[in-house]
Amino acid sequence: MQLPDQVRVVNVGLPLFADAVRQQGAEAVDVDWQIPAGGREDLVAALARLYGDAAAVVDGANAEVLRRLDDGAPLLVRVGTAEREIPGMGPRALLHPGPPIEWRDWCDPLRRSARAVVMAEGWASDPSEAERRISNGDVRLSSASEHAAAIPMASVLGPSAPVLVVENPQGGNLGFSGVNQGPGATSWFGVETSEAVERLVFLREAVGPVLDAAIRDTGPIDVFALVAQGLQMGDDAHMRIQATTNLFLRHLMASLAGVDHPARVEVARFLSSNHLLFLNVAMAAAKAVADWASDIPGSSMVTGMARNGTTFGIRVSGTGGRWFVAPAPWVGDPLFHPGYGPEDAAPDIGDSAVLELLGLGGAAAAASPAVAAFVGGSMADAVATTEAVARICVGLSRRFRLPYLDLRGSPLGVDVRRVVETQVTPAITTGILHRDSGVGQIGAGVARAPLGVFEEAMLALDVALR
Amino acid sequence: MQLPDQVRVVNVGLPLFADAVRQQGAEAVDVDWQIPAGGREDLVAALARLYGDAAAVVDGANAEVLRRLDDGAPLLVRVGTAEREIPGMGPRALLHPGPPIEWRDWCDPLRRSARAVVMAEGWASDPSEAERRISNGDVRLSSASEHAAAIPMASVLGPSAPVLVVENPQGGNLGFSGVNQGPGATSWFGVETSEAVERLVFLREAVGPVLDAAIRDTGPIDVFALVAQGLQMGDDAHMRIQATTNLFLRHLMASLAGVDHPARVEVARFLSSNHLLFLNVAMAAAKAVADWASDIPGSSMVTGMARNGTTFGIRVSGTGGRWFVAPAPWVGDPLFHPGYGPEDAAPDIGDSAVLELLGLGGAAAAASPAVAAFVGGSMADAVATTEAVARICVGLSRRFRLPYLDLRGSPLGVDVRRVVETQVTPAITTGILHRDSGVGQIGAGVARAPLGVFEEAMLALDVALR
Repeated sequence: MQLPDQVRVVNVGLPLFADAVRQQGAEAVDVDWQIPAGGREDLVAALARLYGDAAAVVDGANAEVLRRLDDGAPLLVRVGTAEREIPGMGPRALLHPGPPIEWRDWCDPLRRSARAVVMAEGWASDPSEAERRISNGDVRLSSASEHAAAIPMASVLGPSAPVLVVENPQGGNLGFSGVNQGPGATSWFGVETSEAVERLVFLREAVGPVLDAAIRDTGPIDVFALVAQGLQMGDDAHMRIQATTNLFLRHLMASLAGVDHPARVEVARFLSSNHLLFLNVAMAAAKAVADWASDIPGSSMVTGMARNGTTFGIRVSGTGGRWFVAPAPWVGDPLFHPGYGPEDAAPDIGDSAVLELLGLGGAAAAASPAVAAFVGGSMADAVATTEAVARICVGLSRRFRLPYLDLRGSPLGVDVRRVVETQVTPAITTGILHRDSGVGQIGAGVARAPLGVFEEAMLALDVALR
Repeated sequence: MQLPDQVRVVNVGLPLFADAVRQQGAEAVDVDWQIPAGGREDLVAALARLYGDAAAVVDGANAEVLRRLDDGAPLLVRVGTAEREIPGMGPRALLHPGPPIEWRDWCDPLRRSARAVVMAEGWASDPSEAERRISNGDVRLSSASEHAAAIPMASVLGPSAPVLVVENPQGGNLGFSGVNQGPGATSWFGVETSEAVERLVFLREAVGPVLDAAIRDTGPIDVFALVAQGLQMGDDAHMRIQATTNLFLRHLMASLAGVDHPARVEVARFLSSNHLLFLNVAMAAAKAVADWASDIPGSSMVTGMARNGTTFGIRVSGTGGRWFVAPAPWVGDPLFHPGYGPEDAAPDIGDSAVLELLGLGGAAAAASPAVAAFVGGSMADAVATTEAVARICVGLSRRFRLPYLDLRGSPLGVDVRRVVETQVTPAITTGILHRDSGVGQIGAGVARAPLGVFEEAMLALDVALR
């Protein structure tokens, strides 16, 4: 749909929206104009309160959340073992991405990943035994999000898995992720073959210890300082994070060359052939900062966003730990690997959407020619993606800058009020897994968060503030 | 100067220019309109012949030169020793950047660099003894350009220096450069302190052997394939080549971790702390391709461009090995390190301008937010710099693509006819050295090639074709 050449202000009877409406008319190029909140009465009434009587409380809380999202600067300090590092995980547990979910509702790629991890842990010797162990309740299943961890795609963490540990000095809290498993037949892409299990063992026995030694020798690494540089080099830091990965590897190179471990060269080869190596580091840091920004009473800002391939959930700072959940969306604007198409795709999955809450991924599409290929092909399309996200954000990042926009900050701080008002939801740049064949990744694209969870969250916040 | 809103075609009596004039009016936004060749009669007459009766010969030759510049894909194969690798160098010789020049005319930074090299070679124990060795004629001085080598800034190569060797399979020829000396007190920046001499010894004893072992273990490296990726990551591949350097280091990382040499870790630290490491690799490759494109009778395209801090010279394919020389220009659009200003600057120096002949550096300004800072501050200024270079080029690179321009090719193939006609000369992104204090680099900017050398070359080509 094209905008007409002239837009007249449509007065929907709520003068407090007039500025926003005028703003849309002035800046929008390819954005559909919408009646606020689609005209739904309960939403309009809640918006009127949250932009009206409650505005001072909400805006004050949001200012603090924005400050934390912008100020938190986590440091990567070590690679440890999941059970020892992650508080409350326990010895016979698996952590999964996305909101909490019963085993019977897990999607196919995530089930495969869990079975691969059970085999790598030595709890079962084949997939069917692994399936029994889990369905019998021998293994406890928890959402990584509820343990300060963020894990991408269909990743599952077992107790012996190596985990990246980041410290957020500003908040005094920690964040975790697994070590990125790399390309090919791997369980984070929903593969449970012996090759995928061997990769998990290699990560635990070789990559974890070598990377830990290199990081400790190098000293704490300011994660977002590297990401900020990567944005100047074509990364959106989600779908494309190769430049940041290269900066990270260069930073570690001397320490890595000095690690005294028989697998040093093999690990160096693995690390250097993984374009997405830094994805998990950035996610651990984003998770630590988002957790620090959580539980600020009154705030309408999103501080959790995650998918498990079945459901898509958000958490809002002002409504605490409560999840607002809807079916996971399909990934839009897809580019599929040869031989695959939409009918093969699993729904959107993984905790990586936490990056979009920090001004990265879809918010930073304008930084990345690679992402442009997914949102229309031209840099103008990538800029339009960023501009759309800006409409639902309360600020601009001071550290994540967009070179194509002459170093303007990336949009930061998703406000459920703005999402509901404009009906624009965050754009999430992401990979696509096969829905049921166990073949792994088959494409990539841009997922749109489902509107309903933002509406539900906003109504809950309105109730809490009344 | 701004263009008026409407440009009328000014007929200067030469209808063959009319298309070019119309083109200027149509595309130019911030480019001054000029009477072709400034109206100088001898130039206009030569242009009339070279665009007229001789056009078929010139254009045919240029097509072959353009093909070579676009097709040559040199491979980095090893690091050797200058005297053994570089044909005709000899045992007691120094190679310097830029056109041939007598010792008495060498600029201060280049003299210091030569003395540092003489000390590193063990031919003298202090700068004054080194000065005597050279001025006495004990040491033979030659232009690196005439030995298939291209060396940046005030670099000087002695016989024992480690050199990068690239093979151009398409042309069956080789190209050479030194190993980049890194930041700080180094002779390539015109420093002759003991620290600078020690760096040269470290390069010879440690960096050369370790890098050679890593490159041989990795296998031949397609130099321009890495550069093409770097252009997608914010490099112009001259002033800024950090992204390409990171790709190169990541590519070598596993081999480097396996090198059996006591200095492995120290060398890894040196390599990973040098943002300009790949500059010399790209220059060696550009030199090999430019040499292959040289000596095509009738061609009006520039295949050599180099500066020694005293003179600036070009060579044109159709006029063979002849240099056309003028005083080296000052570097424009400068940004100086704190405490330094224009009065401290040495003139433009180094062989790196060969990159501009391959569609890199100033030609690729539009790829680089970092370069934008030097040409006005905004990406629009960087794009304008590239557009200006496009006016004097005969084609667009098929491999070097500009992400900000939706992957349009970078301008390739500088034609002296177009330079003389438009009076636009190549823009060269480059560093600035201190003119006489031996303190090293004091800034960076964009040098403009002097127009006179292109005029002289075009007149010589015209004579040769008559």
